[in-house]
Amino acid sequence: MIQTDTNKSEAFALKGTICDCGPDRRLRFHENSYVVSDGGICRGVYDTLPDAYAGIAVRDCGSDLIIPGFTDLHLHAPQYTYCGTGMDLELLEWLSTYTFPEEAHYRDLDYAGKAYRIFVRDLKMSATTSAVIFATIHKESTLLLMDLLEKSGMRAYVGKVNMDRNGSPEYQEASASASARDTEDWILECNKRNYRTVRPILTPRFTPSCSDELMEMLGNLRRKYGLPVQSHLSENKAEIQWVKELCPDTANYGETYDRFGLFGGDIPQDHTEASGSRSGGMSDPEDRSEASGIKSGGMFDPAGGTCVMAHCVFSPDQEVDLMKRRGVFIAHCPESNMNVSTGIAPVRRYLDQGLHIGLGSDTAGSSHLEISYAMAEAIRASKVRHQLVDQTLAPLTLEDAFYMATRGGGAFFGKVGAFDKGYQFDAVILDDSRLETPRKQSLENRLERLIYLGDDREIKAKYVGGRLVF
Amino acid sequence: MIQTDTNKSEAFALKGTICDCGPDRRLRFHENSYVVSDGGICRGVYDTLPDAYAGIAVRDCGSDLIIPGFTDLHLHAPQYTYCGTGMDLELLEWLSTYTFPEEAHYRDLDYAGKAYRIFVRDLKMSATTSAVIFATIHKESTLLLMDLLEKSGMRAYVGKVNMDRNGSPEYQEASASASARDTEDWILECNKRNYRTVRPILTPRFTPSCSDELMEMLGNLRRKYGLPVQSHLSENKAEIQWVKELCPDTANYGETYDRFGLFGGDIPQDHTEASGSRSGGMSDPEDRSEASGIKSGGMFDPAGGTCVMAHCVFSPDQEVDLMKRRGVFIAHCPESNMNVSTGIAPVRRYLDQGLHIGLGSDTAGSSHLEISYAMAEAIRASKVRHQLVDQTLAPLTLEDAFYMATRGGGAFFGKVGAFDKGYQFDAVILDDSRLETPRKQSLENRLERLIYLGDDREIKAKYVGGRLVF
Repeated sequence: MIQTDTNKSEAFALKGTICDCGPDRRLRFHENSYVVSDGGICRGVYDTLPDAYAGIAVRDCGSDLIIPGFTDLHLHAPQYTYCGTGMDLELLEWLSTYTFPEEAHYRDLDYAGKAYRIFVRDLKMSATTSAVIFATIHKESTLLLMDLLEKSGMRAYVGKVNMDRNGSPEYQEASASASARDTEDWILECNKRNYRTVRPILTPRFTPSCSDELMEMLGNLRRKYGLPVQSHLSENKAEIQWVKELCPDTANYGETYDRFGLFGGDIPQDHTEASGSRSGGMSDPEDRSEASGIKSGGMFDPAGGTCVMAHCVFSPDQEVDLMKRRGVFIAHCPESNMNVSTGIAPVRRYLDQGLHIGLGSDTAGSSHLEISYAMAEAIRASKVRHQLVDQTLAPLTLEDAFYMATRGGGAFFGKVGAFDKGYQFDAVILDDSRLETPRKQSLENRLERLIYLGDDREIKAKYVGGRLVF
Repeated sequence: MIQTDTNKSEAFALKGTICDCGPDRRLRFHENSYVVSDGGICRGVYDTLPDAYAGIAVRDCGSDLIIPGFTDLHLHAPQYTYCGTGMDLELLEWLSTYTFPEEAHYRDLDYAGKAYRIFVRDLKMSATTSAVIFATIHKESTLLLMDLLEKSGMRAYVGKVNMDRNGSPEYQEASASASARDTEDWILECNKRNYRTVRPILTPRFTPSCSDELMEMLGNLRRKYGLPVQSHLSENKAEIQWVKELCPDTANYGETYDRFGLFGGDIPQDHTEASGSRSGGMSDPEDRSEASGIKSGGMFDPAGGTCVMAHCVFSPDQEVDLMKRRGVFIAHCPESNMNVSTGIAPVRRYLDQGLHIGLGSDTAGSSHLEISYAMAEAIRASKVRHQLVDQTLAPLTLEDAFYMATRGGGAFFGKVGAFDKGYQFDAVILDDSRLETPRKQSLENRLERLIYLGDDREIKAKYVGGRLVF
């Protein structure tokens, strides 16, 4: 029987080969087993259905692989229009030639609608179940993107971008206060729209784009509304040098966010104004009443991350220490780092040091939305780094990459990215029959081939928070 | 009107946006133009059809891009069964764990049939029009692969592999003379089968696999039958060290082939025995009579390369000089080099020095048959090399990669890889409508997106030597 009901409160199970990553970062496979969803929450993996779930709907996935779906910790929705374009340029040149002119188009809601519809359609059909997304500086089109994501059923943080300096004449906000005012208006409008699967995230583009005055205002908004923060960090040597010139009184790039309270840590909220708090006002009543299995309820877990920084290719030790102390998540974007000629982040070191780390597609720095592509690139990049830069850091393995794509990045959303009891019930069903071979394959072989060779054609169905997305 | 006749002698034209690479290695675009095929040979690109071709069949490709198709200079057909498997291992470990046990299966014709049918089907549906292929040590299954390729209409050199040492108990030939005898039997059987699109190529696996005695015998076969040679060269530091130990009296790895006449240069043929010569006996009479446009006729041009070496990641200057003097082609296999942790070849230097160079997918060192994937990886790898190893070598551009994938690698087959008059009429029709964007795109943008984002879904049709393959 195929479960197509999208009412997440109804219990059901998927039956098949269940694969996820344990807390020890090792792959776990359960053949011919059941994973149960109830109230949008995973209730565990079983060889046989427990009595408590006798009679629930069961979707038999045959020999298909069932994985928890991937988290994309960093991507730019407006840039999807020019994915795979202008890859011969380096980062700062690419930004001025492609990025800023393109993002400027999103003041036009008609253009934004066309572009975001394509983006959301393709993200929906990918194996990504949760994403942390940059929009543009435009309030209205950012809301349009959030409406579309909400409708798709995808879990996402979305940020209206802040930029009050070093943009281009057609793509920059008029002043720090105009930028902050628009941002607050946008947050309040998000509250009004009462989204179920989508949340706002504060999004200073990167330090070169945001004056100290703007950063301070964003720090205030963070305290007032209890929102998390996303930005870029230590991606490119020229950029780092630029930040040093712009902020001569900071010891490292990370501090340029931290001194305004925009670099992780707990979110101290300002009293009653915090109507948009992640742990309260934005969960709809249905979510709160149903999701008894996790602390705060709803699709967003207040135990999730408070800050995610993309790249961290050249972070000095002091900056890494600060990230660790503040619980900052790293979004590792290997394809983008190679495409725009930055370098290769020392991911093995971050993993060994116990930092929070996941993967980002970083479209359009990368040419692919698929996190499986980022996984293969992360492994390859780590091998190159091992050979050419530092042989003391072992290359990443399939398990490491799968961990980052699921549990590692998922933790930014709280209990996301595994089939542990109490986790959000996210699942992607993968059919590898197109990847035909006469060879006898282990389950790990099959998973590896799906990562390296598969694409959206292998994705048969996707569930987010217990609801069937497609 | 759609041209579906597979009789290559009939003239026809494709109409659309024609894109190839000139002798100056620059991209050329002709919108709304015609490219004419007659007798399997390209007769040029025209804004309007010349009078001589009035009334020929025209396939209108609308806004689709028409490119010459790609040459894959290096891939292992038997390894396609485990593409994307075991990528966490380094080269020599990967060979003993996956490669040798898998290749040993091809003594079983039933297994070989199943595996090669999948391989040929997928290669046929790719944008590759010409390929240089390793089979296994087995004569019969190599012939089976050649039969399947011939039937598919693909242009290919295929090699029965030689290995008389350092294999595994189940995968190695009994002696140098047994290996050479099997090879000669196989060559003679190829002659008998009178292939049209497929030719044999001598294939010592690599120096560690072939004793001096065997190399000498292969050198004799080369002179006797006028065959080209394919092998591996300077891929991995451990491998290079091993070769040095095995052949202490050679100055470099290249010399280990060269001293037996297996490293390019002209092919001096031994008198009458040369019945299998590339320029004669293997072209069928129909081919020879029709193809008046090129020197020797048929699908294989004697002006093509005589030796192709895969990888050349760590070739010392002396070896590079020897390759240049001997006209040796380099098969650059970027994904494979990163996957099996070797390093990144200095491709820019090879291009600047005027060496012959093209791309190889090198399945299963790489996870993808598609040469477009190798193009993107070549560009990315060159950027990483530029950042981390040698800033004097500029990264590769889209044009460089497209040149290597078409004209550069195609030259191994003679006049292949462009729409110049007198070239083989190979064409691939690419429909990029799935890669939807509201953005106004230049033709170069469209091509770049097809390379980075496209896959076999974008390939609408393929012609090889004037014949419709699908």
